[in-house]
Amino acid sequence: MYYVGIDVGGTNLVAGLVDREGSILRKAGVPVDKSLDGAGLCRQLVRLAVEVCREEGVALDQIQAVGAGFPGLVDNRTGVVVQTANMPFRDTPVRQLFQQEWDVPFFLGNDANCAAIGEYWAGAAKGCDPAVVVTLGTGIGSGMVVGGRLFTGYANSGMEAGHMIIQPGGVPCGCGNHGCWEQYGSATALIRMTRQAMEQDRHSVLWELCGGDLSKVQGRTAFQGARQGDGAALRVLENYRQGLSIGLIDLVNILQPQIICLGGGISNADDDLLLTPLRELVKKGSYDKSMPTRLERAALGNDAGVVGAALLCDMI
Amino acid sequence: MYYVGIDVGGTNLVAGLVDREGSILRKAGVPVDKSLDGAGLCRQLVRLAVEVCREEGVALDQIQAVGAGFPGLVDNRTGVVVQTANMPFRDTPVRQLFQQEWDVPFFLGNDANCAAIGEYWAGAAKGCDPAVVVTLGTGIGSGMVVGGRLFTGYANSGMEAGHMIIQPGGVPCGCGNHGCWEQYGSATALIRMTRQAMEQDRHSVLWELCGGDLSKVQGRTAFQGARQGDGAALRVLENYRQGLSIGLIDLVNILQPQIICLGGGISNADDDLLLTPLRELVKKGSYDKSMPTRLERAALGNDAGVVGAALLCDMI
Repeated sequence: MYYVGIDVGGTNLVAGLVDREGSILRKAGVPVDKSLDGAGLCRQLVRLAVEVCREEGVALDQIQAVGAGFPGLVDNRTGVVVQTANMPFRDTPVRQLFQQEWDVPFFLGNDANCAAIGEYWAGAAKGCDPAVVVTLGTGIGSGMVVGGRLFTGYANSGMEAGHMIIQPGGVPCGCGNHGCWEQYGSATALIRMTRQAMEQDRHSVLWELCGGDLSKVQGRTAFQGARQGDGAALRVLENYRQGLSIGLIDLVNILQPQIICLGGGISNADDDLLLTPLRELVKKGSYDKSMPTRLERAALGNDAGVVGAALLCDMI
Repeated sequence: MYYVGIDVGGTNLVAGLVDREGSILRKAGVPVDKSLDGAGLCRQLVRLAVEVCREEGVALDQIQAVGAGFPGLVDNRTGVVVQTANMPFRDTPVRQLFQQEWDVPFFLGNDANCAAIGEYWAGAAKGCDPAVVVTLGTGIGSGMVVGGRLFTGYANSGMEAGHMIIQPGGVPCGCGNHGCWEQYGSATALIRMTRQAMEQDRHSVLWELCGGDLSKVQGRTAFQGARQGDGAALRVLENYRQGLSIGLIDLVNILQPQIICLGGGISNADDDLLLTPLRELVKKGSYDKSMPTRLERAALGNDAGVVGAALLCDMI
């Protein structure tokens, strides 16, 4: 039996044909056509899903289920994508629209939850229980698998660990609160911190790294500067790791997972600049000083969302 | 079928005969004999457990299981109480010691987890999924039931939500960190805040309420002062609710439980001074502004530990 997973992102739609082991046999993607509405995008999802099957020579009746991960609030019970950031889905009956064109069991997930399922099924968190996956991107995404099932909470909207408050009265967050974790630990936060450090230090090598243009600062800029021994860059990373560690410590002390996987572009930084010092900070803050929770880099990269979406059917 | 639950506290040992519905049919307790070692206390647990059965006329072979909740770290797999605060259990093979005298299925739990099971089975969280129980006492205890099972994390030591960091660099905690939630939301924290306010305001009615003696301040003192309109007491409660709310917001945003039950003596305060304003703060900080999580007072009081210990066998 085969599965199809679709990762619906703000920039690209990617579908993958996935086997029971969570391996992607064939993948296809298209950039998001900004002129399409939710229904139009759904038709595109069907085309992509069918395409990966055809290209791999797999008949559609061999597909056990199709799943799709969305960047936002989904309700798998009703099959509706309730709300997305920067995409035209709002109370969109995605399951109904999909099944009108291809009548196959269809599942909906949040993108962070799909990443968690993917890493649990075939990545760095394979077989770990509980397994938490934290994705450092524009915000902080998070998902957990417990006892072989996706943890969804009561109203099915998934974990929003990025919005735990780690600094009351701190940096304002788009959610309306102050001091949310993602204001200290996301890629966006690291970029903000890098820019602030540059404004305070006109001689930092960080200026060269972004061609003298603050708007060209990326998540990796501070790591590049630190690699060259730049003082401002090293201080930025120290602050960043500090903020990132608080939320990780809180997840460890509240949930004591077997593993926390860090995903997103930031997580690819060299170990000595990120994972190794982060592990020390988290161990120091862990209530159980033996710190049984492993802190690891996620293994599947962007594929985690495709694999996790494909296997939603077995996890929810 | 019947169950026996034992709540092992630093002050009292309490055993209860419990039926399938989680009702306590008979209860017996003794003060902790400080001269006894772990093995001696285990013999006392057996005597108490047998006593409640005999008194209710229930034959021992009608007991499906016995469970005991301890204030500390337990390992139910090995049957060992690893560590307790202020009690002589350390790597004590409690199951073996108990079963030497009464060969019955015997389960071990952490007291906060037992409280969560009790409230889930027969109290305010009945049937809720996920159900989180937070106990405001010397520290902050916490436990969660998900999908009808106790959530224990990886190494079986349970949730330590009281040690999430909500104020980096804040009040020092016994665990070695700074700014743990229990330094802002426990009964101990409220007493500390009350004393500090008294030292800053020699005319506060709080002084009368504790007979001019700082050492006699209790968790309820600030509530009594607030009831009389005392400004210092009102400010203490505002600060206390603020700190307590941060950890509750974090639990809501990370876990989105169906219910959070607040237990411990503090939770008996009048609604207008605690639960009502707390609900507003938590709703305001919740990522999902529809705030599907209910915030309620725990219903079973100290009995939650006995009921939850009795039913450990069905929850782990």
